[in-house]
Amino acid sequence: MISGATRLFAILGDPIAQVRTPELFNALMAARGADAVMVPMHVPAGALGAAVTALRAMPNLGGFVATVPHKVAMLDQCDAASPAARAAGAANAFRRTDDGRIEGEILDGIGFVEGLRRGGVDPKDRDIYLAGAGGAAKAIAFALAEAGARRLRISNRTAERVVEIADRLARAGMSLPVEVAGSDPSGCDLVVNATSLGMTPDDALPLDVTRLTADQIVAEVIMKPAMTPLLREAEARGCRICPGAPMLDCQIELMAAFMGAPR
Amino acid sequence: MISGATRLFAILGDPIAQVRTPELFNALMAARGADAVMVPMHVPAGALGAAVTALRAMPNLGGFVATVPHKVAMLDQCDAASPAARAAGAANAFRRTDDGRIEGEILDGIGFVEGLRRGGVDPKDRDIYLAGAGGAAKAIAFALAEAGARRLRISNRTAERVVEIADRLARAGMSLPVEVAGSDPSGCDLVVNATSLGMTPDDALPLDVTRLTADQIVAEVIMKPAMTPLLREAEARGCRICPGAPMLDCQIELMAAFMGAPR
Repeated sequence: MISGATRLFAILGDPIAQVRTPELFNALMAARGADAVMVPMHVPAGALGAAVTALRAMPNLGGFVATVPHKVAMLDQCDAASPAARAAGAANAFRRTDDGRIEGEILDGIGFVEGLRRGGVDPKDRDIYLAGAGGAAKAIAFALAEAGARRLRISNRTAERVVEIADRLARAGMSLPVEVAGSDPSGCDLVVNATSLGMTPDDALPLDVTRLTADQIVAEVIMKPAMTPLLREAEARGCRICPGAPMLDCQIELMAAFMGAPR
Repeated sequence: MISGATRLFAILGDPIAQVRTPELFNALMAARGADAVMVPMHVPAGALGAAVTALRAMPNLGGFVATVPHKVAMLDQCDAASPAARAAGAANAFRRTDDGRIEGEILDGIGFVEGLRRGGVDPKDRDIYLAGAGGAAKAIAFALAEAGARRLRISNRTAERVVEIADRLARAGMSLPVEVAGSDPSGCDLVVNATSLGMTPDDALPLDVTRLTADQIVAEVIMKPAMTPLLREAEARGCRICPGAPMLDCQIELMAAFMGAPR
């Protein structure tokens, strides 16, 4: 039940109709009996600055989430950002301090790692193959490094982007080796798809699935469909699989905590 | 259940915790099975322009309501205003057009008149005594004139504000006589309090209740308390009374209709 005293949270994106975050966040608040609500705000790229200016001046705003296409641009809009957000070059969760500052964090990577852990998979000391070097991959690479991964092998059409991730991790004080990989995930303990390949039926596979072996764990960032062609191929080869949906579920709690939502 | 596709509505005010509009609006939407939600936005006076700039650029925003202290300032912020809003010098309901224009309306007066009508009181051809010449009184005077009132007698500490209302009504094409009144409501069919006197226990009465007679109808804009000292005195003198709360209830439907909320 929303009243004048309800604490306000928002998610900013363009498009916005497809986002699942308000449902998950509001269900979490309802389960806690908390007087807080998250609403969708359709904010085109050109209006992001105006939206943040308005939200910064709104004392009943707890915080907000940013999704496509705002994650990178929000790094310049916020007044402070976490080391993970700076390393990823993007941020997706924001809290408003009492004096009207906006502080940013990236939870894509931490949420992914937390989802793995809840599934019983700890990235610590693992040799990890990561497909992709985009926004999600950057955040996941940072979170895997922070979680104690032993080595990262990253594949991407443009190798320069892999080198860029290696540089960012090194600058953030991470000492693990980060290597440019091809399509072959052989020899890695954990294989992660952080590309968008698999969202639509005609997509190519993100890596060479014929090289997967039953001792490997294969994890996915794609939430819809739950069973991507990659996961299906991995399962057929006897691999343990980790679907993408738990990543968002875990992120909701992390988002709520970061934004200072009622407990 | 709020999703990414839920149509967004807001109420802007400072303070905001006390507003009842979100509860009433959301109950109306729930009763209609409509996918729309109104949330409170705490907007200090200095941040009003930034808030409107942001809301103007938000395609999933249906509209918003403005309350204290924004009703007068919003007239300059919106791209178009109704004759009633221009006459009242204030606006409290706003809709966003598909091309990002903000159109304003004042519903305080229309809501009040609609509340009277639902209570079985038609202001048409009535001789009306109106206590007060502030924002609410201006809107009510315009709505009463539009509803066909025969004559308005308006009392106010500063008589110039009554003359100003008379001028505004004349400029808006209303031909009824508008006169400066003292504290004596004798001879009027309908007696309306549009001052804030009666909200707190120590307030003076807004008019000379000793002159009230049983053939008069006494109406109140104050919603809390439901029974003001004026209404109690009027009831004791045999007058028919009209409490203020139905005004807000009626306004909710008018607001929803003006803002283009789902039916």
